[in-house]
Amino acid sequence: MKIDELLSKPSEWVRSDSPNSKIVMTSRVRLARNLRNVPFPGWAKKPDRQRALDLMRPVVEALPEMASCFSDSLDNLAALDKQMLVERHLISREHAAKNAGSGIVINDKETICVMINEEDHLRMQAIKSGLQLKSVFKTIDKVDTELEEQLDFAFSPRLGYLTACPTNVGTGMRASAMVHLPAMVLSDQINQVVQAVNKLGLAVRGLYGEGTEALGNFFQVSNQTTLGEREADVIERLNKVILQIIEHEENARCTLLEKKPRLVYDQVGRSYGILSQAHTISSKESLNLLSLMRMGVDLELLPAATRTIVDELFIAVQPAHVQRIAERKLTAEERDSSRAELIRQRLQDVPRPNNPPPIGSTELA
Amino acid sequence: MKIDELLSKPSEWVRSDSPNSKIVMTSRVRLARNLRNVPFPGWAKKPDRQRALDLMRPVVEALPEMASCFSDSLDNLAALDKQMLVERHLISREHAAKNAGSGIVINDKETICVMINEEDHLRMQAIKSGLQLKSVFKTIDKVDTELEEQLDFAFSPRLGYLTACPTNVGTGMRASAMVHLPAMVLSDQINQVVQAVNKLGLAVRGLYGEGTEALGNFFQVSNQTTLGEREADVIERLNKVILQIIEHEENARCTLLEKKPRLVYDQVGRSYGILSQAHTISSKESLNLLSLMRMGVDLELLPAATRTIVDELFIAVQPAHVQRIAERKLTAEERDSSRAELIRQRLQDVPRPNNPPPIGSTELA
Repeated sequence: MKIDELLSKPSEWVRSDSPNSKIVMTSRVRLARNLRNVPFPGWAKKPDRQRALDLMRPVVEALPEMASCFSDSLDNLAALDKQMLVERHLISREHAAKNAGSGIVINDKETICVMINEEDHLRMQAIKSGLQLKSVFKTIDKVDTELEEQLDFAFSPRLGYLTACPTNVGTGMRASAMVHLPAMVLSDQINQVVQAVNKLGLAVRGLYGEGTEALGNFFQVSNQTTLGEREADVIERLNKVILQIIEHEENARCTLLEKKPRLVYDQVGRSYGILSQAHTISSKESLNLLSLMRMGVDLELLPAATRTIVDELFIAVQPAHVQRIAERKLTAEERDSSRAELIRQRLQDVPRPNNPPPIGSTELA
Repeated sequence: MKIDELLSKPSEWVRSDSPNSKIVMTSRVRLARNLRNVPFPGWAKKPDRQRALDLMRPVVEALPEMASCFSDSLDNLAALDKQMLVERHLISREHAAKNAGSGIVINDKETICVMINEEDHLRMQAIKSGLQLKSVFKTIDKVDTELEEQLDFAFSPRLGYLTACPTNVGTGMRASAMVHLPAMVLSDQINQVVQAVNKLGLAVRGLYGEGTEALGNFFQVSNQTTLGEREADVIERLNKVILQIIEHEENARCTLLEKKPRLVYDQVGRSYGILSQAHTISSKESLNLLSLMRMGVDLELLPAATRTIVDELFIAVQPAHVQRIAERKLTAEERDSSRAELIRQRLQDVPRPNNPPPIGSTELA
């Protein structure tokens, strides 16, 4: 499968009919694995790295999960295509910066993705829409088992899987859910939640993981530790916390609608108004306004069918995706114009949001 | 005529079919006059002020121009009604703060208005839409002549008309035009214009005169001096400068449309988008967005019929007017909701603004 084929359609995981997908955008689990007696990619000489890639890539490609897949060495990919893979959460920013000696194998649905010679020899992830941590873990666990039958992984009976960075030693697992928390942000409760989640030993990060901004009211909640706890227990614990976060966000939405209905209608209405009428818009502003429209769909101010349009736009408005549609490299200013045009097109059949209860009702407080 | 009758309809001068009314909202001329041998209102004792009012009010009411008019003592007016008169540019903020001993006479079209015992015994103004300084002066000059036949005005052969503040001594005349200069503001040329106009001995002020903000890209240009120049010459000079300002603004609009069409379409589109979808909005934000929509009408991005809607809204969105529509005193938060509802209602039949030339055209620079 060619990269164009992969990138010409929205990712499979942009679906709205998954469990809890109102608030949980995606569930992801990634495992870090390394070959025994082969230097870690960061330490390896170029020929070692190439040899490791040549050894691993065919094994990954031969997985039954990869029957139909895209597979390539990173030096064969254009910068724009790599950036698109980052925007789709398929590869890390760090991996996108790599070239010869590193590779990538992705199944056609974009639900399984294996980075070769990122920080570790293998970084494999599974991703699905909604809250499906257990199912996602099952998927990637099977891939891991299949690979381990063919490859000799560096494993210490005392520590578990060995990794380039000590924070991953043990399970090598990072499980995460991308949660959408606009009501928590609007009602200034988000910091409390972040602190509470941190106390439980879990991390809260921005849209693109560690060190990135919480754009569009999206937060990535993940386990911090990889030692001393079984994978299934970590998943179970994370799942429980996410369910609590969902409950908090749902309560915050109800409270907002009850106590400050005009604020909610105003935020949703303005977002729709700007997105459907702007002629130049940054990706940051787009994400933040799309976020409020998404909340509008959840609160039934906008038709349910709008969610898929909005969710696809979250990816499509990002810089590399915008340039792909334009079929050429664009200046920042041109991107802002193209992005606005794309959004206006996609929203043109979306009706105006509903009106709030009449003025003078007791809800106005 | 009762105050309710006067205030229940938009002011006559909110018209779009006057000369140069695209850029000149209104032309106004006011004259300051005082009675001979009667203390100025600021110095007078209460009984003196009341006596002066009782002397002048019947004379003003008897003018042929006031055949159908509203006339009252200020202590009979509710605070909200006085504020509405301010918002309609009929009386000054200072006059609105006055009570017994001061009065107001306004013709039914709201084109002639006489304040009694403001800073001077008489402050009479004529106001019309568009650039009609000469005609406006003619109107108020006639009123002045008629009044002078009945009243003995304080006049010095050497200085001219005597006034409470020395800055008005001489003609007692302040002629002004309210100009709408969004393109000058968008292209950062407004400060140059203000400086150039100041050098010509004219003043540039905000929406409500001296010391007020330039809301909605409206600027009031007026003569500074009242000594040493005949009224007709002052009017002529002001008229010439206004014509130049119109030309500058028109050029700025053409340049913007040519060099930065997307900026123009974006500003107009977003303004329409927000105004037609917001559920809570301040008067300041409303004025600024209405201003951009008004420019959109002038540039034919919106139907011509939209101008009257927008021009009426400039007055109707202001705090006292919003409360009049709600028929009760509102909190700031309630005003913002009521204002947003009013705007959405008035804009509901206004179609979306036009789209810009296709992306990729050379105009995108």
